[in-house]
Amino acid sequence: MDTVKYLLPDVDLPANWYNLAADLSGPLPPVLHPGTGEPIGPEDLAPLFPMALIEQEVSTERWIPIPEEVRQILLQWRCTPLYRARRLEKALNTPAKIYYKYEGVSPSGSHKPNTAVAQAYYNREAGIKKITTETGAGQWGSSLALACQMFDLECLVYMVKVSFNQKPYRRAFMETFGATCIPSPSDTTAAGKAILEKDPDCTGSLGIAISEAVEVAAQNADTSYCLGSVLNHVLLHQTVIGQECLAQLEMAGDYPDVIVGCTGGGSNFAGIAFPFIGRKLRGERDVRVVAVEPSACPTLTKGRYAYDFGDTAHLTPLVKMHTLGSTFVPPGFHSGGLRYHGMAPMVSHVLASGLCEARSFNQLECFAAGTQFAKAEGILPAPEATHAVVGAIREAERCREEGRAETILFNLCGHGHFDMQAYMDYNAGKLRDYDYPEGEIAMALAGLPVHGNS
Amino acid sequence: MDTVKYLLPDVDLPANWYNLAADLSGPLPPVLHPGTGEPIGPEDLAPLFPMALIEQEVSTERWIPIPEEVRQILLQWRCTPLYRARRLEKALNTPAKIYYKYEGVSPSGSHKPNTAVAQAYYNREAGIKKITTETGAGQWGSSLALACQMFDLECLVYMVKVSFNQKPYRRAFMETFGATCIPSPSDTTAAGKAILEKDPDCTGSLGIAISEAVEVAAQNADTSYCLGSVLNHVLLHQTVIGQECLAQLEMAGDYPDVIVGCTGGGSNFAGIAFPFIGRKLRGERDVRVVAVEPSACPTLTKGRYAYDFGDTAHLTPLVKMHTLGSTFVPPGFHSGGLRYHGMAPMVSHVLASGLCEARSFNQLECFAAGTQFAKAEGILPAPEATHAVVGAIREAERCREEGRAETILFNLCGHGHFDMQAYMDYNAGKLRDYDYPEGEIAMALAGLPVHGNS
Repeated sequence: MDTVKYLLPDVDLPANWYNLAADLSGPLPPVLHPGTGEPIGPEDLAPLFPMALIEQEVSTERWIPIPEEVRQILLQWRCTPLYRARRLEKALNTPAKIYYKYEGVSPSGSHKPNTAVAQAYYNREAGIKKITTETGAGQWGSSLALACQMFDLECLVYMVKVSFNQKPYRRAFMETFGATCIPSPSDTTAAGKAILEKDPDCTGSLGIAISEAVEVAAQNADTSYCLGSVLNHVLLHQTVIGQECLAQLEMAGDYPDVIVGCTGGGSNFAGIAFPFIGRKLRGERDVRVVAVEPSACPTLTKGRYAYDFGDTAHLTPLVKMHTLGSTFVPPGFHSGGLRYHGMAPMVSHVLASGLCEARSFNQLECFAAGTQFAKAEGILPAPEATHAVVGAIREAERCREEGRAETILFNLCGHGHFDMQAYMDYNAGKLRDYDYPEGEIAMALAGLPVHGNS
Repeated sequence: MDTVKYLLPDVDLPANWYNLAADLSGPLPPVLHPGTGEPIGPEDLAPLFPMALIEQEVSTERWIPIPEEVRQILLQWRCTPLYRARRLEKALNTPAKIYYKYEGVSPSGSHKPNTAVAQAYYNREAGIKKITTETGAGQWGSSLALACQMFDLECLVYMVKVSFNQKPYRRAFMETFGATCIPSPSDTTAAGKAILEKDPDCTGSLGIAISEAVEVAAQNADTSYCLGSVLNHVLLHQTVIGQECLAQLEMAGDYPDVIVGCTGGGSNFAGIAFPFIGRKLRGERDVRVVAVEPSACPTLTKGRYAYDFGDTAHLTPLVKMHTLGSTFVPPGFHSGGLRYHGMAPMVSHVLASGLCEARSFNQLECFAAGTQFAKAEGILPAPEATHAVVGAIREAERCREEGRAETILFNLCGHGHFDMQAYMDYNAGKLRDYDYPEGEIAMALAGLPVHGNS
């Protein structure tokens, strides 16, 4: 038997999201108002989010029920399969057992719809008519476009300009689902205009696109803003991934020694890892957890754990997270979903508490691993997901060297069908690695806000 | 509940392929040698195919066991889901129940790996080292590349030149799995050279690409040729689709009144329909079956049921099928997988016997239906599959007009992730319909071979 698949019946789709905040020893550092430096309250977030999501953002309940309407939509593609990567194990000649959770079976090809559907649901329930968001590579924008269509909401996506131009197919995908895409920075917002005035050729960044989307939502009462990662409630919605893995590994009679996930904003990593970290915190079972990021945007491995803005125009509150500085613009490597200056505060807290480790890899090594995985397992990983692949392969190689039959679990968070230009460039030898952008990061970090960091 | 999904456990993956030949009232018209006009024997096909596949080609056994090694690989993505399209039904305001089988969950995104894996297996068993094939849109080439990688076979794909240039991402996908892609017509074969000599700017066709792939396989003892549709054994391998549907509809407590599939060479249509047509022929249960094709390549609706070549250079045997003439080059509409002059002889026989109907649609109507389906169900169909979608929608609309709550089943044979240029052009209003190419077809039909048709 080459590949082994573990499927769960529909009844095993989790009934609740798992909230790691319930098992942490203390509260997360407070979110601060950028003007006053004082902790913000729910009312400060109300212009952007419906109250149900704000309550989830600050909740310390361990289990939060998934609304039945959301569960029924998730069931279109969930529970997603867990695979034992027998052919990859053989190719690596490793005594390790490698399992991967495959989130690419969703209609938009990644884990993102897990939270897009939930966010669209709560906004529809709150009477919201229109949603704004940002997207980089397009995985998030596609997923929100899909979810908005399902709940009859308008969807406005600010797409980082370099991706808007490089990835017309992602844009066409979003437009087919009825969304409107605007290249960012744009002249539709004050934030965008200010940036274009200084730099008319600016190719954009996630931080800038967030500023534009937040500005539009804040100014219109019937409009909300949705984020595809970083926030507590987004991570919460992804925990169906790890909960399913727990049940699937039980079917396999296994438990991971090490869990690997890639980190941009942190949501797919949290989704697979938090339910296991919770068990560790509750003293039920130990586990090693490894977060993998690009070495050209090394938030967890080289960033500072400090208060910073989530966006470039400084419209968001201040959150304590690992950051490269909100003005840092990562070099143009091919994992648009990982090109973010910050990190989910809860993932940062987990790293700072010693509950996980972080590693970084450059892109040639990632694409080599992605290609090796595709040849062995038949599934072409998204560039973002190749970071988890290379992390898992390095663990399996360590097991070979140490002669240890450990169990490795990683999250294959999406397929690469919309990222073939990257593979084409890689196959043609046109991709290159990027130096660690030390100077740019130092300059961006010098501009960290005073509040919380003084 | 919006969408309803019917999943089968792994043990319900069919153990056998279903062979319609066992239930037909008589044998298919014989395959003829192009030189002598006499029926050919297995030995005539031996330079191209391993004997196990030739035996399947001519078998009249009803059930042919699926080798366990093939089953284990199919289980990576099979059994595929059957969905009840509740949201589409609601959008159409139809009393009909619409079910669709979704084959896009395979690693290459279509039904094609069902036969690619089987063909690669039998070739590996026969000691073959290298496989040649042709591909149009790339669904078949991708699937064979994937299967060859799994069985450690070299894979050489002649890709229709216009698609090679228009779809670099499909090519990159194949190359990532280790295949070699050559734009056809090429100077690597006598057939290709002869065509380039007459027309250096020739953009190619499936018929020409087949000629090149067949020529290379015939001249090398360690090399076989694989075809992605048309032949009996290819259709046979696709019958897992319809068999699964039978079991899944039984779970749903339903049975189709009408089955819809799109037809290029006929394999996905046969895959879903033949197990039901077999039941009809055995007097177990009646069913209407509708084959849908592009009106710009109207093989079943406007072609002649006659002996013709499968390729342009006339290297293949003569088969009796609906054909537009082997020299017919269809206009450049966006469903590359349906741009073939001929049809599977067994599908043609089914049509000629009154066991199915055929309809054709122009491409704007197809993309409109594909977009409507995507908005309702969240899955973006391949351009080929939009023909099945529009066929199913028209049946549902008829049910609405007639006030009949019929059960409609269609095959969503693949997703459109690699065909976004087509959707981009459609969204931008750049696509157009094509006139029925009456003159070109008449000219091509005038050149039909004498043998079998005299």
